[in-house]
Amino acid sequence: MTPRLLFAASEESWHEYEGHLIHSLAAAGIEAELSPQAGPPETVDYIVYAPNSTVQDFTPYTRLKAVLSLWAGVEHVVGNPTLRVPLARMVDSGLTEGMVEWVTGHTLRHHLNIDHVLAHQDGEWNRHVPPLARHRPVTILGLGALGAACAQALANLGFPVTGWSRTRRKVEGVTCLSGPAGLEQALARAQILILLLPLTPGTEDLLHAAHIDQLPKGAVILNPGRGQLIDDAALLAALDSGHVGHATLDVFRTEPLPRDHPYWAHPRVTVTPHIASETRPDTASEVIVENVRRGEAGEPFLHLVDRARGY
Amino acid sequence: MTPRLLFAASEESWHEYEGHLIHSLAAAGIEAELSPQAGPPETVDYIVYAPNSTVQDFTPYTRLKAVLSLWAGVEHVVGNPTLRVPLARMVDSGLTEGMVEWVTGHTLRHHLNIDHVLAHQDGEWNRHVPPLARHRPVTILGLGALGAACAQALANLGFPVTGWSRTRRKVEGVTCLSGPAGLEQALARAQILILLLPLTPGTEDLLHAAHIDQLPKGAVILNPGRGQLIDDAALLAALDSGHVGHATLDVFRTEPLPRDHPYWAHPRVTVTPHIASETRPDTASEVIVENVRRGEAGEPFLHLVDRARGY
Repeated sequence: MTPRLLFAASEESWHEYEGHLIHSLAAAGIEAELSPQAGPPETVDYIVYAPNSTVQDFTPYTRLKAVLSLWAGVEHVVGNPTLRVPLARMVDSGLTEGMVEWVTGHTLRHHLNIDHVLAHQDGEWNRHVPPLARHRPVTILGLGALGAACAQALANLGFPVTGWSRTRRKVEGVTCLSGPAGLEQALARAQILILLLPLTPGTEDLLHAAHIDQLPKGAVILNPGRGQLIDDAALLAALDSGHVGHATLDVFRTEPLPRDHPYWAHPRVTVTPHIASETRPDTASEVIVENVRRGEAGEPFLHLVDRARGY
Repeated sequence: MTPRLLFAASEESWHEYEGHLIHSLAAAGIEAELSPQAGPPETVDYIVYAPNSTVQDFTPYTRLKAVLSLWAGVEHVVGNPTLRVPLARMVDSGLTEGMVEWVTGHTLRHHLNIDHVLAHQDGEWNRHVPPLARHRPVTILGLGALGAACAQALANLGFPVTGWSRTRRKVEGVTCLSGPAGLEQALARAQILILLLPLTPGTEDLLHAAHIDQLPKGAVILNPGRGQLIDDAALLAALDSGHVGHATLDVFRTEPLPRDHPYWAHPRVTVTPHIASETRPDTASEVIVENVRRGEAGEPFLHLVDRARGY
């Protein structure tokens, strides 16, 4: 029987995805019905899902085989008690590439002190040759698909990279730590600290005052992960005192970041408006379709969420 | 007989290098006399050389086995008619690393439009997600040690990289072109153009008006190579018209760049004061000592300059 796919996300997303999904389904030789219209819930096999859709109660979807998230972060859906079928996260090569580019670009920006260069186009020939990357320790918290790819890219450029994750991982050329003692070590050596942890009850406010204190003086923080990983008041205090040299933040508790939020005006903060990376409809559609193919062939789904861990 | 090394460079360089050279000689098990004092020229076996030294006439150095340049660029010495022994360029891993970091950092800065981000910390949440690197063609002119290393680093990040050199080279993952027709192709696709050619009579003013015209509209130019590669008047005209979107320049015909030079004030130009990279005394000393070892063992020198080509 032809599987039925419900596209449950914003209307804007539908316009971006429709063509790519149709193309990917055809390329995979899958005949499927694809629609953004709810229709009778008991006829739906797969939901292509974003949390900002109108579908919040999965109970009526009695034939559902899987929910395929369009988003990498699943914190808005993982706790939904009506969801009783496999949930797959988006792991999109385009998302990973964009994240590696943002993280590498802003790491090198701070490493090379490019802000200072741009602010001093005043005719003064002041040569300050930066140290080599091999003398600039970088720490990445989170070694999932995104964190591991960023760690490897920075290690390739010569940075001594330490990665930390809840459970021990292995990434070539990267010093991998885990657990509370590992976190302390990872923070203490971080001239540049990059946050790429998933948001879970265990990671919310992970960067609180005591952890910020463990950073070396003048450390730079990049947060392209989740806004809730940072205790904002503690970070602002550390920026004011100069203990943290700069923070480049792409994600926030409230987005868009309110116009009167102190981050906008702080001289030691750079706000980027949640552009570090995003799912690309072309490559993401291939991931969705591959999971539909697997579901129809009775093969295991890719990128399944562990509901107990939350990601 | 103990070889005698004359250190012919600035006094400042001597202070930077003395300890590292002594250390590297000892580590290589070479007993040598090392001094910045001229002494009797006919007793000198090797000259460790920078063009800003007082040694300009090599005729009296009758026992000389090689001149070992501290600089990567040898255009100030290669034409010296009194130099009749092998001349080795500096190919320093620290120099290469620093160059890769500067080139990668400024390429990503332009790719991610970081200048725009820094200039718009005004509370407006305007999301402009940049394209992926794989959709941003980059061209590097010059595929020597520095150009090839930069080409590879950018290709690793996903940029489609075209490299051009006088004679055809091979760099993995990089489209390598050569000759005049190849140059035309390389320029025509360069959204970001990076100049890393040696300075020779054949490369001076290579980026003249006709070649600049071949770039796509809005192209960005990075010049960490040599100031003389660019026809400055032609570049300024192309910046004024907007044909060239931005130029980030590290090297200039006259250095320090005069305070009243139009590059300083031009809104589409970023001046960095010859900091893209420099020879690092620790790693460079190892290169010098390795060539002394080779000379004493009768082995061929590394990084020899081809006097006919000029580099």
